[in-house]
Amino acid sequence: MTKKLRGNALVAQSGGPTMVINQSLVGAVREARKHKEILSFYGSLHGIQGILDENFVNLKRETPANLEAVGATPSSALGTVRKKPTREDCERIFGILLKYNVRYFFYIGGNDSAETTHIINEEAKKIGYEFRCFHIPKTIDNDLCENDHTPGFGSAAKFIACAVMGDNLDNRALPGVKIDVVMGRHAGFLTAASALARVYPDDGPHLIYLPERPFSAKQFVADVNAVHKKLGRCLVAVSEGIADADGVAIATKFIKETDSHGNVQLSGSGALGDLLADQVKRNTKISRVRADTFGYLQRSFPALISEVDAKEAREVGATAVRQALSANIDGSIAIRRKPGRKYQVYYERVPLRKVARDTQHMPARFINKAGNDVTRAFINYAAPIVGPLPTIGRLKGARVPKIR
Amino acid sequence: MTKKLRGNALVAQSGGPTMVINQSLVGAVREARKHKEILSFYGSLHGIQGILDENFVNLKRETPANLEAVGATPSSALGTVRKKPTREDCERIFGILLKYNVRYFFYIGGNDSAETTHIINEEAKKIGYEFRCFHIPKTIDNDLCENDHTPGFGSAAKFIACAVMGDNLDNRALPGVKIDVVMGRHAGFLTAASALARVYPDDGPHLIYLPERPFSAKQFVADVNAVHKKLGRCLVAVSEGIADADGVAIATKFIKETDSHGNVQLSGSGALGDLLADQVKRNTKISRVRADTFGYLQRSFPALISEVDAKEAREVGATAVRQALSANIDGSIAIRRKPGRKYQVYYERVPLRKVARDTQHMPARFINKAGNDVTRAFINYAAPIVGPLPTIGRLKGARVPKIR
Repeated sequence: MTKKLRGNALVAQSGGPTMVINQSLVGAVREARKHKEILSFYGSLHGIQGILDENFVNLKRETPANLEAVGATPSSALGTVRKKPTREDCERIFGILLKYNVRYFFYIGGNDSAETTHIINEEAKKIGYEFRCFHIPKTIDNDLCENDHTPGFGSAAKFIACAVMGDNLDNRALPGVKIDVVMGRHAGFLTAASALARVYPDDGPHLIYLPERPFSAKQFVADVNAVHKKLGRCLVAVSEGIADADGVAIATKFIKETDSHGNVQLSGSGALGDLLADQVKRNTKISRVRADTFGYLQRSFPALISEVDAKEAREVGATAVRQALSANIDGSIAIRRKPGRKYQVYYERVPLRKVARDTQHMPARFINKAGNDVTRAFINYAAPIVGPLPTIGRLKGARVPKIR
Repeated sequence: MTKKLRGNALVAQSGGPTMVINQSLVGAVREARKHKEILSFYGSLHGIQGILDENFVNLKRETPANLEAVGATPSSALGTVRKKPTREDCERIFGILLKYNVRYFFYIGGNDSAETTHIINEEAKKIGYEFRCFHIPKTIDNDLCENDHTPGFGSAAKFIACAVMGDNLDNRALPGVKIDVVMGRHAGFLTAASALARVYPDDGPHLIYLPERPFSAKQFVADVNAVHKKLGRCLVAVSEGIADADGVAIATKFIKETDSHGNVQLSGSGALGDLLADQVKRNTKISRVRADTFGYLQRSFPALISEVDAKEAREVGATAVRQALSANIDGSIAIRRKPGRKYQVYYERVPLRKVARDTQHMPARFINKAGNDVTRAFINYAAPIVGPLPTIGRLKGARVPKIR
C-alpha cells in the first residue's frame, strides 16, 4: 500500500444525463487539484467509447470559473454513451488506461457503470497493477443499491413536482381528467415525486401508479371515476413502466388490444398516455380527458436544479478522489442518511459489486395499500432531497350570495 | 359622459391558462381598490359559465398579501372555460350583469373573449345602459391583433427556451435526432421561441418548422440528414400545427398514410412527434431518433415566469381599470413597443372589434427563406419579452494528443 501513487487520472460520464452529473465531474476535478500525486486529469469523451477511441480532453486546462459554469449546467459535459462493454472491451479499456499511465479512474454512472468499473478493477488486480478505481453514482431513477438516494434524482424530482404543480392548477382551472406519464421503467421514485406537488387538500395528483404494483385498467378507470365524482376533476401521475400482474408492460398490452392488424407501431412517446386516456373516455361519461408524456425534459432541464442535489453530487465526486488518494482502495461512494428528524447525509465507500449487481425499487412503506398513491413516509423521504418548491397562492374566494 | 359611474365590477378569465393571467386579475383588483366608484368587485368562476350560473366570489375580501401570492401563481385562479357564447348567451349574461348592478366588466382572454366582450357591450349600448366594458389580453400563442406581443407568451416562451436548452445539452451528450413538438396550431411564435435556447454556434434547435410555412416531409428528412451529417446530431423544434401546401395538418395526413384501416385513432398527445421520428428512421440511416411532445406544461409551469411578462400582465389589468374609470369608453388594452434599441412598451386602448376579429401570425421577416428557421429579427423581438435565461457552461475541452 502506498499513499504516494503517482500518475494520471481519468474520468468519464455514462448513461442518461442528469441536471447535476457535471457537479460530480467538477467535484472530482477540483479535489484532484489539491493532490500533486495526480499529474494529468483526463476526461474521456462519451464514456467508455471515448476510452476505446482514445478521445480525451485535458481537464487541468479548464479554469476554475469555467469549471463552475459547467458544474451548474445540466447534462453530461464530457458526453455520454449507452454502451455496456463486453469483457473484451474492458480488457482493451484497461490496456489503454495503462498506456496513458492512468492510475486513478473515476466513472460517473448507474449500476451498469459500477459493473464496468468493477471489471476494469479486476483486470488491474490480475496483473498487480496499482490502480484506484471508483464509481461515482448518478441516476434520475434513484434505483442504485446501497444509496439512500442518488445524485440526479432530487433535481429530476423537482422538475416533476413543479410540472405536476402547474398541471394541477391547470386541471383545477379547466376541469377534466389529466394523465401525466413520467419516466421510470422499473422504479417508481420519479413518478412518486409528483406527490410533492400537493399544497391544498384537494390538490392533485389524486392518483399515482407505479411499476412496483400491478396495474389493472379496470381498477384505474374505477379510481379515476371515483375521484372525478368527488372533485369534478382528476389528475393522475403514472409511470411509463406500469405492468400488469404478470409483469407485462401496459403500453404493449393495450397496443395489442387496440390494433389487431399488427401493422401500426405505437411504441412512441405519447402512446401510453393516449391509451390510458382512451380507457377513461370509453368506460366513463367524462368528456374532457387529456394526457401528457413528460419525456426527457426532467433529466437536463436548466434553471430547476435542487440545491441539495447539486451539493451532494459535487460531494460524491470530491469524496471519490479523496478516498482514492487516502489508501489502496476502490469502491463506489454511497449517500447515506443519518437517522433523525433533521435531514443530514454522510458519504461512505461501498464495494463496487454491491452497487453493480441489482437495482432497488420503491419500498413497500412508501406505497399506499390500494397501490394508487404514496405514503407520508415517502413525502418525508423525498421532500428534503428536492428542496423548496414554488409558493402556490389560491383565492380565499368568499362566495357572493345569489340574487333571488 | 360621467366620471362618477358608481356600481359593481366583475372580472372573469377565459380560455387556456397562462403563467401570468393572475397578474392581470390582481392588477385589476388592486387598481380598483383605489377608486371608490367601484363598490364590490366580483370574480366570476370559470369565465362566462360562472356569469350564466351566477357563481361569483367577492374579490374585495382578499387580503393584499393573498392577492400577491395569487398573482405570482400560474393558471387561472378564478377558473376558466372553453365556451364561445351564442348571442343568446350574451344577452343572458348582460341581464345578469344588470341584476348584480355591474357597471364595470373586465374579461381576460384571447380574441374570442374580445368578441364576447364586444357583444355584451353592444347589448348595453342598445338599451343605453351606462357600462364600461374592457377586454384584457392574454394568450401564450401571441396571436392577438394590435399587440406587439401578448401577456402569457413571454413566460411560455421562457419554458420552451429552457426546455430546448436542456434538450440541446442532452442531444449533444447523447447524439442522435431529437424532435420536440410545441403547442401552437396556427401561430408559430411559441415554437420559434426555441431559437432563444442557442448559446454556442453549434447549439440546437438546428431546424424550426412553423405553421406559417408549408411543411414537406421530404424536405424535412433532407434538412435533418444534412444537419446530422455536419454535426453528428440534430435537434428539431416543430409546431403541432404544421400543415402542407394545401393547409392540411401534417398530423392528420401522416395518420392516413400509416393506417389504411381507419380504425386506429392517433390524434393523441405524441402522435405527430412519433410520426416525424418514423419518417427520419425510415428514410435515413440515422438510428437514434427520439421525439417529445411538450404538451400543456408551458402554460402553467410555476418557477419559470418571465419577469417582464409578469409585470406587463399586471399592467394591462391595472390599465383596463384606470381607463374604465377615466371616461365613458370601452376597449381592449394593447401592448405596444416603442421604436429603438432599448426594450420599452406602452399600453394603448384599442377598439374591441379590432382585437376580436382576427388573429395574427409570424410575419415574414421573422422566418428564414428556407422556412426551417427564424431570423435574427425574431430573436431581437422575443429575447426581451422572455428575459434572462440560464447560463450554460461548456468545457474548453483541450484535446489530449493520442499516444502513438
